[in-house]
Order: sequence, then structure tokens, then C-alpha cells
Amino acid sequence: MAEAGGDDARCVRLNAERAQALLADVDTLLFDCDGVLWRGETAVPGAPEAVRALRARGKRLGFITNNSSKTRAAYAEKLRRLGFGGPTGPGAGPEVFGTAYCAALYLRERLAGASAPKAYVLGSPALATELQAVGVASVGVGPEPLRGDGAADWLALPLDPEVRAVVVGFDPHFSYMKLTQAVRYLQQPGCLLVGTNMDNRLPLENGRFLAGTGCLVRAVEMAAQRQADIIGKPSRFIFDCVSQEYGINPERTVMVGDRLDTDILLGVTCGLKTILTLTGVSTLGDVKSNQESDCMSKKKMVPDFYVDSIADLLPALQGED
Amino acid sequence: MAEAGGDDARCVRLNAERAQALLADVDTLLFDCDGVLWRGETAVPGAPEAVRALRARGKRLGFITNNSSKTRAAYAEKLRRLGFGGPTGPGAGPEVFGTAYCAALYLRERLAGASAPKAYVLGSPALATELQAVGVASVGVGPEPLRGDGAADWLALPLDPEVRAVVVGFDPHFSYMKLTQAVRYLQQPGCLLVGTNMDNRLPLENGRFLAGTGCLVRAVEMAAQRQADIIGKPSRFIFDCVSQEYGINPERTVMVGDRLDTDILLGVTCGLKTILTLTGVSTLGDVKSNQESDCMSKKKMVPDFYVDSIADLLPALQGED
Repeated sequence: MAEAGGDDARCVRLNAERAQALLADVDTLLFDCDGVLWRGETAVPGAPEAVRALRARGKRLGFITNNSSKTRAAYAEKLRRLGFGGPTGPGAGPEVFGTAYCAALYLRERLAGASAPKAYVLGSPALATELQAVGVASVGVGPEPLRGDGAADWLALPLDPEVRAVVVGFDPHFSYMKLTQAVRYLQQPGCLLVGTNMDNRLPLENGRFLAGTGCLVRAVEMAAQRQADIIGKPSRFIFDCVSQEYGINPERTVMVGDRLDTDILLGVTCGLKTILTLTGVSTLGDVKSNQESDCMSKKKMVPDFYVDSIADLLPALQGED
Repeated sequence: MAEAGGDDARCVRLNAERAQALLADVDTLLFDCDGVLWRGETAVPGAPEAVRALRARGKRLGFITNNSSKTRAAYAEKLRRLGFGGPTGPGAGPEVFGTAYCAALYLRERLAGASAPKAYVLGSPALATELQAVGVASVGVGPEPLRGDGAADWLALPLDPEVRAVVVGFDPHFSYMKLTQAVRYLQQPGCLLVGTNMDNRLPLENGRFLAGTGCLVRAVEMAAQRQADIIGKPSRFIFDCVSQEYGINPERTVMVGDRLDTDILLGVTCGLKTILTLTGVSTLGDVKSNQESDCMSKKKMVPDFYVDSIADLLPALQGED
């Protein structure tokens, strides 16, 4: 495949030679998960070997995902199950930064001082689990069909007086009733609005997809006439979570992802080196279109390097053994 | 109340003298309903009398509402029930242009030639009734809770092969399952996406409100990565429906509404005279802020006149009797 050219010198293929040079200069690699390590329940071929080889070289790894439907522990288990390994032994800390976990860190910070805080959660049981782990109880998880006969009934449903935040994540039980309740909570003074991410789609195997969390966040934002605090990529907050636990030096860190508008944009924003992998959403055509755009925000969404797959890192790692 | 000043000469109080001059120059008055004629089930005090006086003066009236939850017939009945009267006798045509009715006109035009066309409707039974009246059958009206255990099941639900359009109106049964089905239909070649309106809120009595249809349209648009064709104000299409049935001369027509961003913008766009009534959503502060804005699209949302209530038209009408 030809190199993506354009006005900008960036976005060159990361061949083995360039990969060796790059890896010599970095000590931390941050990976997106869906579309980079796996698609659904299937690992990208060669990806587990590449990740294990990075571990063997002593690189520190972090896995950063906008997906809010799994706990940190569930992601660690999936990484091991699909062959990506994981830290073992005493002092081995978790490597996964998902938006369920990071939304919990955000609420812990913002709700510090509130006694027995609760959140109205449009999201998964995993999101509620991570919130619970930092002392924030949840209401609202699960189905919520329409109750009552009209607006008067819908607006008369009880509200929990301890709710201090509305948290919107991926919620297959999203309903108009939940939207109504969320907006009512958001009318209360001081109630926070937090969205795990703004992804418009959740890609699945074989080009299929589901409506993403961003669609649900946008509906709540529009009804409440408020902007949500966003946890996931490209918001800096999720990187700050990693940085705080890892003590990151941005210049010696790489962000690897399949989306220009989340992974690569986050990397560029935070001063990291960036690698686009072509196993997911974005293409070299998208890169070229961003390079040629006269919109500054698009011009920022160009990676330093690209690979067909993160399996392409293997030769560089094996070559030095 | 002082007159809203600003750089622009427009937006003066419509006192009795100015109202007499205005009414002498117009033969058609178009009224928004919610916030202008009534709030919920309560008529604005004096509004029925003003409307009946306009009828007595031989003015032609049209009622233009973004609300998609009632049929044309149901609106005519509500107008009579709350004392606004209505045409009687042979040849008396309907006066109400709601987005359920106008969405049906739109689909009749766009789906002309399709045999037995169907629409996937996120909306009310009234919307389905209006579609049926122009020969478009509906699927999807009513509750649609999550079925199955995950993405594979959700994406395997049967689709109706005759569906040619997704129509999004006010739907208190909106759910993630419906969003998923809508997006799957929209992946089919040629499937239309129609939104009855983009209102972010549906105002009710006593300052209360529900999430508006716009929140639901936006969620579908974002997931489908498509823009909906919008029927209601400020889209020109709803005015074209009136114009086609009434044969309107814009210069001799007034649009009366309570929202700058829908009613007044539509009036300005279509070259009508415009009156803002302060019984609903927008305030004189909003007018001033639009007048002072350096955004051209906001500067357009300024009415020619304002009244505290359409009851203020009464003296001008009685004065000439």
C-alpha cells in the first residue's frame, strides 16, 4: 500500500525499521481495544503475539476504551482469554481504562463531600458496579417502560432526592421514560450530566454496528439544554486517568487506535506519538481527507504512523531479540 | 412594558392603532397553537374571543402546529371545544396543519409510484392514521421493549420489506430497540428519513415540559449518519402545505407564534408579517439578544410586532365594529 501523502509530512507507514526506532524511544503504549485488538469476540490475527512481545520487551501497556459496558475486571479477563496476557504477581495493577471505570473516578472527584451520593444511570450493570466501587450508588439501571397515561403521570413519578448526577453510557434499555426522568433530575440544582463517550456507532463484526452512546447522550443534552461532561476519547479526562496512575511522559508514549476522531485526536491533543491501525473504522482515505481539509480541527486528526494491523509491530520486536 | 429596541427597527408593540392598520392590510392569519391559543387543555384568556372576532371580520385562519400527536380532525375538535370556533357549512375545509397531516402529504409526494408503501413510524397512532389516509401503512407504533440477549439478536429481528421510509414524531414509546430498527431500515437503499419537527422541548402548563421530538430525530440522525427531512416549522414545507390549500399571498399574511426559532423564523423565511406573543416560550429578552447577535441566522429571528397575548388584538377588532 502506498504511503498517505498530502501537504503534511505525517502519516507514514510504520515499517520494521521505523518501528524499531520508535520503540527504542518509548516506554508506554496505549491501545484502543475494539477494532485494534479484537472485533467482538475474535482477536485480530497476530495482535495477541504483538502485545505479548511488547510485554516481553518490558514496555508498559494501557488499554483505553470508550466502551462503558464492561468493568475493569471484565476487560482484564477478556484480554487474558483472547491471548493478550496481563500483569501477574504482587503489585501488578490493572491495565484497563474503560469509561465505566473512568466515569466512576470522575464522579468520585466531583461528588467528594456529598454524603451517600447517588447517580441516575442510563447504562449497564457494569457502569453501576464501577460507580458502587467508589461509593456512588445507582438508580435506573435496567428496563423502564412507559408508566401512566400521559405527561401528568410521567412527570409525577418519584425522584430519588439523593441523586446528584445523571450518567449516560451505553444503554440498550434506553427509553423515553428514562429520558424524561433524566431531564427531571437535571432540572435539580447542581445535578451533574456525565456522558461516557460521544461515539455515534458501536462497530461489530462484519461491518455491522449498533447506535452508539453518543446518540443517547445527545438526546439527553438536547432535552436538558445542557452539555454533558464527556469521559472518553477524545476528551482529555480519560488520558488524565491513565497519567495519574502511570505517571506518563507524553513524549515517550504512543497511542494506537483505529479511529481518527477519538484515538488519534486524543493522542495529538495530549502530545503523544500516534499510530493508526487499519483494522477498524478509519481508512487512509480518511487520513488524506483530513490532511487536505482546511478545517483546523480535522487537520489535527492525522497520525504520525499507520500499520495495516498491530501484528505489523512483530518483525521489529523479533528483529531485536 | 417598554418596546424592545436595539439596532433593528422591528419588533414594536402591536397597539390597537397599529393592529387596525395591520389587519386592514392582511386577509390571512396563521397561528401556532401551543403557547398561543392554549397551554395544554386551557385556553389563553381572551384568545378564543380574539380568534372568533377575526372570523367575524372575514379573515381566513390557519393553525400551524409542530405537534404530531393529533390528527387534523382531533385538532379541529379541540379548537371548537376550547371556544375558537371553526368553519361550518358546505365547502368548509379544515384549518389545521399539524405535522402528522403534513408528514403524510410529504410521503404521498415522495413515495408516489411505490406500490403498497409502508413507513416505520416512531410516533403516535395519530401519525399512523394520517399516513393511512394517504395510502401509507405503518409498522412500529406502540411499545417495543428490548428483545433477545444481545447485538446478534437485536440485529436479527425481521424487517418489513415494504418499508420505504422511517418517520420520527413524538413517541413516548421511543426505545433503543426502535432506534436499532430505524437505523437498520435506513441502511436499505432509498429508505427516506423524515422528522416531524426538531423542537427540543414540548412545553406544558406551569413551566413544565417534556423532551421534544427533536431529541429523538437527532438520535436517529446521529446513528444513521443521515440528515432527516423536517416537516414542521421552521422548515418551509409546512408553509407550502398551507399555501397549496389556501393559495396564499405572503404580503397579506401574518404568522403569529410564541417561538422565535420556529414560528417567527418560518414567517420571516416565507416573507410573511410576524407577531410574537409572549404567552409561550420566547421573551422580549430573547428578541433583544437576537437583534444584537452578530450571527445572521439569529438576526432573522426577530418579529415585526409583539403582543402580550393574542387577546390584545380584540380592541382593534371591536373598535371597528
